[in-house]
Amino acid sequence: MNQDLRLDDLQIRNLKIWQDKNLFCFGTDAVLLANFAQPKPKDILLDIGTGNGIIPILLSAKTPVSSMTALEIQPECAALAQKNVDYNHLSKQIQVVQGDIKNASLFSPSSFSYITCNPPYKPIGTGLKNPTSPLAIARHEVLCTLSDIIINASRLLKSKGRLAMVHKPERLSQILYLMKQNKLEPKRLCTVHARVNTPPCLILIEGVKDGGEGVKWLPPLYIYDENGRYTATCKALYEKQHTLNNKIMETEG
Amino acid sequence: MNQDLRLDDLQIRNLKIWQDKNLFCFGTDAVLLANFAQPKPKDILLDIGTGNGIIPILLSAKTPVSSMTALEIQPECAALAQKNVDYNHLSKQIQVVQGDIKNASLFSPSSFSYITCNPPYKPIGTGLKNPTSPLAIARHEVLCTLSDIIINASRLLKSKGRLAMVHKPERLSQILYLMKQNKLEPKRLCTVHARVNTPPCLILIEGVKDGGEGVKWLPPLYIYDENGRYTATCKALYEKQHTLNNKIMETEG
Repeated sequence: MNQDLRLDDLQIRNLKIWQDKNLFCFGTDAVLLANFAQPKPKDILLDIGTGNGIIPILLSAKTPVSSMTALEIQPECAALAQKNVDYNHLSKQIQVVQGDIKNASLFSPSSFSYITCNPPYKPIGTGLKNPTSPLAIARHEVLCTLSDIIINASRLLKSKGRLAMVHKPERLSQILYLMKQNKLEPKRLCTVHARVNTPPCLILIEGVKDGGEGVKWLPPLYIYDENGRYTATCKALYEKQHTLNNKIMETEG
Repeated sequence: MNQDLRLDDLQIRNLKIWQDKNLFCFGTDAVLLANFAQPKPKDILLDIGTGNGIIPILLSAKTPVSSMTALEIQPECAALAQKNVDYNHLSKQIQVVQGDIKNASLFSPSSFSYITCNPPYKPIGTGLKNPTSPLAIARHEVLCTLSDIIINASRLLKSKGRLAMVHKPERLSQILYLMKQNKLEPKRLCTVHARVNTPPCLILIEGVKDGGEGVKWLPPLYIYDENGRYTATCKALYEKQHTLNNKIMETEG
């Protein structure tokens, strides 16, 4: 057995996930995105850059979405996502596809009604030493830029379909600009802060294809209270999904 | 004497301001914007839609900006702004101009290095009963839209010049989109919340003409603590400028 694999208990509906320490391990961002996203049971969902499949697996516990496609460009990650889907007996709901979102022949336009994405956060060139490593590809826009994601999400969504994404706050203006340029109207926004008095460390945003203008802001989400303990809101996520174990620093790094 | 005029003490450097209850009276937004804006002494500043002149008057107490132009489209407001400038002996620093920002012959392109604006927040057609009243003009985009402000601010700013604005959070995506479209790169953002657990009620944003991408978020600003009292941060503004007296409701209304 691969010594680098570990099995994590998601502590919800007996779901478990294999993670490989050489690949990208999911963190707070994935849990926050799965909580923020609101697919309905009849949605046809696509998760772009699924990594080990964490987002569709968490979503399966929250909403019985009948059809979820987990797209991953890196073959070793796609294999791990398939292993996780099989291990959790979710192969009827979740189909893992290895491929590139930029490949126009992969899916037909307007094939989906809900898209989730926890994309690489960093542009190429910001402290990138080993651009071909799986971790670099998961964290930096080596194989897929923000623009690639938004252009292709818009192409693949039907009218009124939604894209839910987690990203770094400093890229907000680019995200909103690209969304509006591609007819994905930003409609729901939530800032996530380590503490009450710190600037946001993450943003959660949902755009609606062909939606009308006007952003609805949710109350901010705080990770820690003034004593450095998880806030009640955050503890509720933690108890459900056991994933906030200091992972926020890892994913911010 | 006009019965509708009242003299308010700004409680800083002995500045006072005449307000007319039939016109727009300044509120928290103006104080927040004057605190957020960071003009330097050598900046050539323009305040678009100055109302009774509150922004340049407050800025004069904070930074000795040598040249400030206070532009106001409504003649009765411009007259009041002039009265306030004269009353506070600021006519050397602040020049009141009555005119329309959309009038291309009013100022030459690239005339300014810093622009402030507390614009009307609401699009036309959202609950507007009396569109020609001075209050309607101050609150709704009757004479000047968000797009007019951003296009003309970009035209009037020199490269690296800055636009600082206060607005409603629901219009953030429009603001960022128009800024980027007009080469005003959003660079500094602050959300203002009534309380820690409420969505923002105002946003403060600064764009830099021809600036590079990337938004710096400030820590959120909270008006009230859990007991309904002003927070320490807010009290500091209040003690300086005596203006938070329940005015946030008035300007949100």
